[in-house]
Amino acid sequence: MTRPSSVPPPVTAVLDASSRWLPERLGEVERLLREATVGYGEILGADAGATLDAGGKRLRPMLVLLCAGPAGDPIATRAAAAIELVHMATLVHDDVLDAAPLRRGLPTVAATSGRGRAVATGDLLFSRAFALLSEAGDTRSVSLLADASVALAQGELAQRRDAFDLGVSEGRYLARCRLKTGRLFECACLLGRDEEALRGFGAGIGLAFQLLDDVLDVSGPAERTGKARGTDLLDGTVTLPLIEAAKSDPALREVDLRALDDDAAEGLCDRIAATGALERVRTRALEMVAEAKRALEDADFEPEQRQLLSLVADGMVQRYS
Amino acid sequence: MTRPSSVPPPVTAVLDASSRWLPERLGEVERLLREATVGYGEILGADAGATLDAGGKRLRPMLVLLCAGPAGDPIATRAAAAIELVHMATLVHDDVLDAAPLRRGLPTVAATSGRGRAVATGDLLFSRAFALLSEAGDTRSVSLLADASVALAQGELAQRRDAFDLGVSEGRYLARCRLKTGRLFECACLLGRDEEALRGFGAGIGLAFQLLDDVLDVSGPAERTGKARGTDLLDGTVTLPLIEAAKSDPALREVDLRALDDDAAEGLCDRIAATGALERVRTRALEMVAEAKRALEDADFEPEQRQLLSLVADGMVQRYS
Repeated sequence: MTRPSSVPPPVTAVLDASSRWLPERLGEVERLLREATVGYGEILGADAGATLDAGGKRLRPMLVLLCAGPAGDPIATRAAAAIELVHMATLVHDDVLDAAPLRRGLPTVAATSGRGRAVATGDLLFSRAFALLSEAGDTRSVSLLADASVALAQGELAQRRDAFDLGVSEGRYLARCRLKTGRLFECACLLGRDEEALRGFGAGIGLAFQLLDDVLDVSGPAERTGKARGTDLLDGTVTLPLIEAAKSDPALREVDLRALDDDAAEGLCDRIAATGALERVRTRALEMVAEAKRALEDADFEPEQRQLLSLVADGMVQRYS
Repeated sequence: MTRPSSVPPPVTAVLDASSRWLPERLGEVERLLREATVGYGEILGADAGATLDAGGKRLRPMLVLLCAGPAGDPIATRAAAAIELVHMATLVHDDVLDAAPLRRGLPTVAATSGRGRAVATGDLLFSRAFALLSEAGDTRSVSLLADASVALAQGELAQRRDAFDLGVSEGRYLARCRLKTGRLFECACLLGRDEEALRGFGAGIGLAFQLLDDVLDVSGPAERTGKARGTDLLDGTVTLPLIEAAKSDPALREVDLRALDDDAAEGLCDRIAATGALERVRTRALEMVAEAKRALEDADFEPEQRQLLSLVADGMVQRYS
């Protein structure tokens, strides 16, 4: 079986359960991703190549392909590559915003090549996504991806606006996560197939994914997440674990996030964990995944497709455990 | 006549010479630009609104509309707004890269709102461009704009790569300008009308525009350009005036651009000007404009359209004089 390099366990489960078509198409997506980043000068080759090699779960391409199904339109493969290029572009830009040294345990483009190159590299990946999708001649897909990209940027702006603000409400946090993460998962599903039931599925697992990611930032361990615990807190990003923890430990609302150093951030992580907030957030995420899977039942899928989509949804949870 | 606010003189000449349709459509473009940046939160409203209000010549939208002509497809107006959104996005990102305090004499988004918000604001403007264009349902336009955006980012990366390198050749400089500036002008023309002759016209005036912009950086005056003289030199950007000046004053190749301060940059500008390089670069740009206008002769245009496009080409020169 052709398999993308460094495939993490939950994705392996999906690949193992699928028949031949899925890994083959994911291999094709990797080829398109590679193509999209070569021939644009040695700098992009190096920077984007490093981003590609750093792997990632290719969850969004997998959702596109799974929703499109084995008989899916050939355009789905292009759309799968395009959505991953947008995702990669936002990661490269996020690392500029956060001045992050590491991503998936490897140095970020911003760290190795500087902010300037990282901004331009992100712009290039972004442009290549739309070039790839428009070559396929389908404006519905371009519209979907452009609107999701708007949402991503809105989510990022909302995160900037709310940075260091311990008064951020749960509702505001969830709205931001829907923009920043949910919409791209939703877009992936709709790129694969034009079906309303998939909107709830994609948005639901995307939101669960973000919640669990925010739990991982507090719980670590660093060896698994590839970055230090409390990175979000150091960036001033107030996430659900902290909001939830402050319900039982209100003094947490008085912490000055701007004054945190690495050790204090670790200490704050321990304090959040001590309230049991991580389990409560995890439960919320599990409920979201269960609800997303129920949304799947309304869609007219082949048994294999539904089973594989369920496995992807379960994968959201497995990455935590 | 409805006119975009703060219209600079060369553009006024085009508007004055045109019949009613052009200013009306430019008014519509302004409306679309405004629409594209409201309703996405107060931050974007403020940041993008400030970028919009800072004006700009709307040269690229004007090229789209002029090439489309009075009987042009309604899609041209959307394409005109979309290309200006991409242009705005790159300006916002460029100011992050260069940490520029001023643009058109006003504070940049990067300066007022910080790098993080500027990166996200640029991403949002960029995404809105593709959303706007894909709503019109024309993949040819999306492809053209995406490919031009790829070229812009490549040009930006080339500029990073060559920064502070006084050995950069004229050919390398010109290739970078074609990517960074020429391609978007070319794209503007082709968005208006699918005609091969327009490729040379757009690319030619775009290149001339960049050469004259690089002359202005050296010649100033700051009151006119809205930024200090020698800003490019301080950023390590080696442009044609310096390359040309070094032909008659080879010691210029030994200058350490990294060691420049504001005063030394002004001094270097004077030294470049003393070689007569500015006149020589200006002459090159004038030749490019003349050649671009010859390319127009091959295209099948109404007399008014050809006259107005010539006026835009002349405007490239007027901004210098």
